[in-house]
Amino acid sequence: MKAELITIGDELLIGQTVDTNASWIGEQLNQLGIDVSQISSIRDDRQHILDSLELTSSRSQLVILTGGLGPTNDDITKKTLCEYFNSTLILNEDVLEKITAYFQSRDLEMLEVNKDQAMLPNNCAILDNSRGTASGMWFEKNEVIVISLPGVPYEMKGIFSDVIIPKLKEKNLVSNVLNKTIKTQGIGESFLAEIIKDWEHELIENGLKLAYLPSPGIVKLRITAFGNRENELRNLIEKYVLKLLALIPDYIYGYDKDKLEQVVGELLSKKNASLSLAESCTGGNLAHMITSVSGSSSYFKGSIVAYSNTVKTDFLSVDSQLLIKHGAVSKQVVEQMAIGANLRFGTDYSIATSGVAGPNGGTEDKPVGTVWIAIAADEKVYSKKLTLGDNRERNILISSLSALNLLRLKLLE
Amino acid sequence: MKAELITIGDELLIGQTVDTNASWIGEQLNQLGIDVSQISSIRDDRQHILDSLELTSSRSQLVILTGGLGPTNDDITKKTLCEYFNSTLILNEDVLEKITAYFQSRDLEMLEVNKDQAMLPNNCAILDNSRGTASGMWFEKNEVIVISLPGVPYEMKGIFSDVIIPKLKEKNLVSNVLNKTIKTQGIGESFLAEIIKDWEHELIENGLKLAYLPSPGIVKLRITAFGNRENELRNLIEKYVLKLLALIPDYIYGYDKDKLEQVVGELLSKKNASLSLAESCTGGNLAHMITSVSGSSSYFKGSIVAYSNTVKTDFLSVDSQLLIKHGAVSKQVVEQMAIGANLRFGTDYSIATSGVAGPNGGTEDKPVGTVWIAIAADEKVYSKKLTLGDNRERNILISSLSALNLLRLKLLE
Repeated sequence: MKAELITIGDELLIGQTVDTNASWIGEQLNQLGIDVSQISSIRDDRQHILDSLELTSSRSQLVILTGGLGPTNDDITKKTLCEYFNSTLILNEDVLEKITAYFQSRDLEMLEVNKDQAMLPNNCAILDNSRGTASGMWFEKNEVIVISLPGVPYEMKGIFSDVIIPKLKEKNLVSNVLNKTIKTQGIGESFLAEIIKDWEHELIENGLKLAYLPSPGIVKLRITAFGNRENELRNLIEKYVLKLLALIPDYIYGYDKDKLEQVVGELLSKKNASLSLAESCTGGNLAHMITSVSGSSSYFKGSIVAYSNTVKTDFLSVDSQLLIKHGAVSKQVVEQMAIGANLRFGTDYSIATSGVAGPNGGTEDKPVGTVWIAIAADEKVYSKKLTLGDNRERNILISSLSALNLLRLKLLE
Repeated sequence: MKAELITIGDELLIGQTVDTNASWIGEQLNQLGIDVSQISSIRDDRQHILDSLELTSSRSQLVILTGGLGPTNDDITKKTLCEYFNSTLILNEDVLEKITAYFQSRDLEMLEVNKDQAMLPNNCAILDNSRGTASGMWFEKNEVIVISLPGVPYEMKGIFSDVIIPKLKEKNLVSNVLNKTIKTQGIGESFLAEIIKDWEHELIENGLKLAYLPSPGIVKLRITAFGNRENELRNLIEKYVLKLLALIPDYIYGYDKDKLEQVVGELLSKKNASLSLAESCTGGNLAHMITSVSGSSSYFKGSIVAYSNTVKTDFLSVDSQLLIKHGAVSKQVVEQMAIGANLRFGTDYSIATSGVAGPNGGTEDKPVGTVWIAIAADEKVYSKKLTLGDNRERNILISSLSALNLLRLKLLE
């Protein structure tokens, strides 16, 4: 089955928004064994939408549109779809009820434009949007399926996962594809490729596919198998996962939907252990990652974001002489910060970070990207130096991930 | 002048790579007043490339392709362009010399496939790539310009900035588009649309365009003007910006590339004032946003992420009786947290947050999404209640943005 995506919005064409929706849907469809042959980003323009619908429907069996379903006047997708499919807009009572409930639960007044979102075409299936007020629409005409989704990524992903994937499966439009993603932290893509090249070679010879999916601090490996012998394929994938685990045990922190912060949380819960933080260069990001996990309050007590030296001495009992002698970005100071956090919060484990996040503030001795991380278990402490690049955002992210993986390894010891 | 972009590569279609090239080129062309009407991402496939060239050349005067110019076999763009333009490949001595120097300077061995990169079409202008080995190509046929660029963003950007922009200007192909983006926080898209509808109507009647760009907690409004009377248009846009500012003064925090955390940082710097935080439900995200700004250490002292009640009493001097009587998510406690932060950190301003981020932990009295934020200036304190949804990530983000905007308003008083 051949699919095309149409993403609608001037903001995509003038570089104001990077089109992450197309990329996300492309990945989902690929995992369902549906072949995406083209992505077209087009204007919020009636004629352009009509022309694109005509053209894509002539060469593909599935067309997915995103964007232009909001309540305001510049959102013209619904109107244009009605024109293309000769639809009449009718009030959908179920949707109106949900929109009303949505506004009531947020103590917000409902406006006429919001009510208009319950006016939907009479000749399509309505796809429930549990995360917002713009419904998805599923049209079928001349054996081509045309699906329209809102452009807000959070809402689009909800409808896609909750409604579209089950519907595509129900209609037998997906082929049998098995995927397993292995998540690694602490090794770059090319080094990883070098270490696992024999493993990769064997895997490909056995008919499996491998993709490297790198992002800052993390490289995901996705193994894909196609075919109908589901159990056999699943066993084959598992065999290669185990072989890989033997090759690079310290780098693998999880699989598929696992997140490093959640894996660490589960290990802490299992040990009935508590955690605190002392963050300098990560500036609260580590606390943010840990508390992004629902239920983290059962093991996470708190963090001191110590952005000035006086905070390091006052709140974390770092020796001011050490700060003068070695500077804040040093093994000595980061270790005292970690020990100080455990003492002050009364926790079993702590993580401390101190570094030059950049882009400014580097010295010859400690260039931008120099980061120290420490893990303390009670009063025992272990530290590690990272040498990163000059991008502030990346340095903060990679430092946070490295610290979490270090804690994970300590928790497994 | 109408332009289209064609980005070539299977990795774009299966979600392995987000297409940042298209977004970057779109922004550049928009600033040159060249209207990008469509972006098409297509496969590394000869027929698909030929069909796309045919179609885009029939409806646009400028077509820019990226990708598929590497030295390996799956890079077929150059071959396909030769077929489309009836070109012959000839050795370009200048380019060969540069490629040879490129390898020598990096102490790398030069392979036959690298030499092949100096074989270039005889009927196009060669665009010098100072950052790599794949040259750009500029074809002209039937009054349509077709430009081919490598897919590596760093190389593509180099050729675009150094060669293409000057060439487009030299040929008088650039015209005038003006954009201004107004950024708002604290009001939903539909409420905003309701308040500003007369303003919007008048703006459109005066030949300007308006787009709503919503993301969690933020709605951006983009005004666009087309034409050659640049000063006149700039003044017209400014007139409408001022009118909007009068309509919704509290919601507008900045323009174009402004970020709320950076606007707040500038206001603090101007006042020579310092900031600390006491975060419960935002769990470090507020500190993370503030410290994402380079140079924030000059006004930001630190944060206590107080995830347990004992941390609130021990570190922030919150009265334990208040915690028992009103609970952690209350006006009384959040105000004491803010005052406690200022006292403990010795800062001029502080922000405190306490709420039920969800998805669990709600009660009938305090359902998921109930959030209190407080701003203290020395010992004066101001607090506000938010009623949000049930998505943890969004609640944390919207709480953080709301707190920053509240601080911004206090700093402006």
